[in-house]
Amino acid sequence: MVYNFNPGPAVVPAAALREAAANLVDFRGQGMSIVEMSHRGQVYEEIHQQAIDRCLRLYGLGPEFTVLLLQGGASLQFAMVPMNLLRPGQSADYISTGHWSQKAVEEVGLVGRTCRLAGSSEAADFSYIPAQAELDLDAQAAYLHLTTNNTIYGTQFQALPRSGGVPIVADMSSDLLSRPLPWDGIGLAYGGAQKNAGIAGLTVVIARREWLDRASVEGVPTVMRYATHTKSNSLYNTPPVFAIYLFGLVLQWIEAEGGLAGIDARNQHKAGLVYAAIDASAGFYRGHARPDSRSLMNLTFKLPDAALDARFCSQAEKAGLIGLKGHRSVGGVRASLYNALDPAGCQALAEFMRDFARQHA
Amino acid sequence: MVYNFNPGPAVVPAAALREAAANLVDFRGQGMSIVEMSHRGQVYEEIHQQAIDRCLRLYGLGPEFTVLLLQGGASLQFAMVPMNLLRPGQSADYISTGHWSQKAVEEVGLVGRTCRLAGSSEAADFSYIPAQAELDLDAQAAYLHLTTNNTIYGTQFQALPRSGGVPIVADMSSDLLSRPLPWDGIGLAYGGAQKNAGIAGLTVVIARREWLDRASVEGVPTVMRYATHTKSNSLYNTPPVFAIYLFGLVLQWIEAEGGLAGIDARNQHKAGLVYAAIDASAGFYRGHARPDSRSLMNLTFKLPDAALDARFCSQAEKAGLIGLKGHRSVGGVRASLYNALDPAGCQALAEFMRDFARQHA
Repeated sequence: MVYNFNPGPAVVPAAALREAAANLVDFRGQGMSIVEMSHRGQVYEEIHQQAIDRCLRLYGLGPEFTVLLLQGGASLQFAMVPMNLLRPGQSADYISTGHWSQKAVEEVGLVGRTCRLAGSSEAADFSYIPAQAELDLDAQAAYLHLTTNNTIYGTQFQALPRSGGVPIVADMSSDLLSRPLPWDGIGLAYGGAQKNAGIAGLTVVIARREWLDRASVEGVPTVMRYATHTKSNSLYNTPPVFAIYLFGLVLQWIEAEGGLAGIDARNQHKAGLVYAAIDASAGFYRGHARPDSRSLMNLTFKLPDAALDARFCSQAEKAGLIGLKGHRSVGGVRASLYNALDPAGCQALAEFMRDFARQHA
Repeated sequence: MVYNFNPGPAVVPAAALREAAANLVDFRGQGMSIVEMSHRGQVYEEIHQQAIDRCLRLYGLGPEFTVLLLQGGASLQFAMVPMNLLRPGQSADYISTGHWSQKAVEEVGLVGRTCRLAGSSEAADFSYIPAQAELDLDAQAAYLHLTTNNTIYGTQFQALPRSGGVPIVADMSSDLLSRPLPWDGIGLAYGGAQKNAGIAGLTVVIARREWLDRASVEGVPTVMRYATHTKSNSLYNTPPVFAIYLFGLVLQWIEAEGGLAGIDARNQHKAGLVYAAIDASAGFYRGHARPDSRSLMNLTFKLPDAALDARFCSQAEKAGLIGLKGHRSVGGVRASLYNALDPAGCQALAEFMRDFARQHA
């Protein structure tokens, strides 16, 4: 028995993996695997549509929104967003809260479009999320791009900024489907499935249909046009069948956990256990994130020195707490507590932290 | 028990599926699934590297070649190839042998590059592969693009054309790893894994390292540059872990079947059984492909009328022969005999064809 704190690919609900394993050779008695069936056949099409419908339902979204099931990760979205949604001559606003925000900014220039920085916490080592008053928003921007959760630094937007009618484009790679969201300001959200919603190889895009339909596609390769995928319901080319099947199983599990409200309560409880261990350590554990910007997904902290960081991670691993090493650019410890991580894992980590601090403080 | 003639996603070696199913919940006793592990950890990195090495070994390729494990399907390659390998001012040659060749041609213009048609069988309903003498090759072309196997029409290049030193770019979506190939003329080959080499969600690119390193990347999004993936050994962003794991298992199975020479002999035998049933039917079954262009992968034929085509497919399905309906653009019957289809399935299909012809001729 281990607890999996990997930052992604990451823990998947055991019930979903067990069901997929049981069906991998012979899918529901059909004599073949789901991965061996046509993506244009009835069995797969139902799985595909149910995943889309369930995703919309979990977020409480109506038919004005669409869910696209794509490939290529957030890295491809960094390019697709400006290529589709930012015309030459227009400008978009980007808020920089970490490494991945910066990657998103770089791609805008690479594809020959223009953007400006509407806010940044780089000077403070990306330790916080800029407050509304710190943002410098362009009312004429084509969209406002932000990263809802910063995996490396352990910060998260507690609420989305007020964008004054400019549609928000949100990279939700590491907190997709982890909490309810107010969608009135959002034009498009994207994220890989491999942290909170399944396995690597599937990119989920949730967007306002009407906005995508108005998008400019001149010079954009067919497979990189959102319109290609809205028109074909994400069946333009062969979709990543198994990753979508597993996505559907994870969405069922989220429903059974009480939907996004239930998952959010569970995630708050889990993160609370670990943050309490940090806060009660009398400074032995120092969080990277400012308390008002703390992430429920990735909890980053340091011990008094790097040697202790390393000892902490290796002893934790021996105790069955896997994947705690911080990202190389920040160092220290990072505990990723995605949806599927059992609360007992957070309890075990908090206890381990208290014991370790007692022994080494 | 069924035999799976699906055109893709398609049959996967049962041994590979069984091993993946057995390891999906707990990978080799590690306490977690392969899909829950970091793609930067040792366990996954070994799987990743072994798949790459095994692919090169099966094709007998040395270190001047590289294997990239990407996402997005052939559709994304249609754009990546000209964006990376065709500079403005240059021209590439394209041979058009079907629907997918035409899609590849269209993308060249969409991304602002130039190509010309070096040969086409469109006027003959894509029923054959143009011979060397029919090609009009530009000795200055940046590359010569062709589709080695045409899934919809059931034609296949029996040998690659002589390109006079111009590097060949081959879309091998439906005959990847199905036969040995002479690589001296090939600069780059690509294909999805979901027909002969695993499951949907993985695109395999095999290319000359040095050619990719010289590629122009101005204005190309980072994730669409071949150089990005050669430099990072296809670990620039999170790879489709499970599809790559299964790809590795399928490659092991190909090795156990005697490598590509063994697989080729098996595929020749399989296709021979079905073509013999066509040829012995006194015209009851009419092949779409000209005999000199026949595919070993997709065998397309028609019965005397469309009503009989439909009856054939529905009776075959009742007999456990699944997925035989022809593509909507051609009609008739299509039997896809990819690597993993058991020869017994071809035997069963040939017998069914003889019985059906006897009853309906």
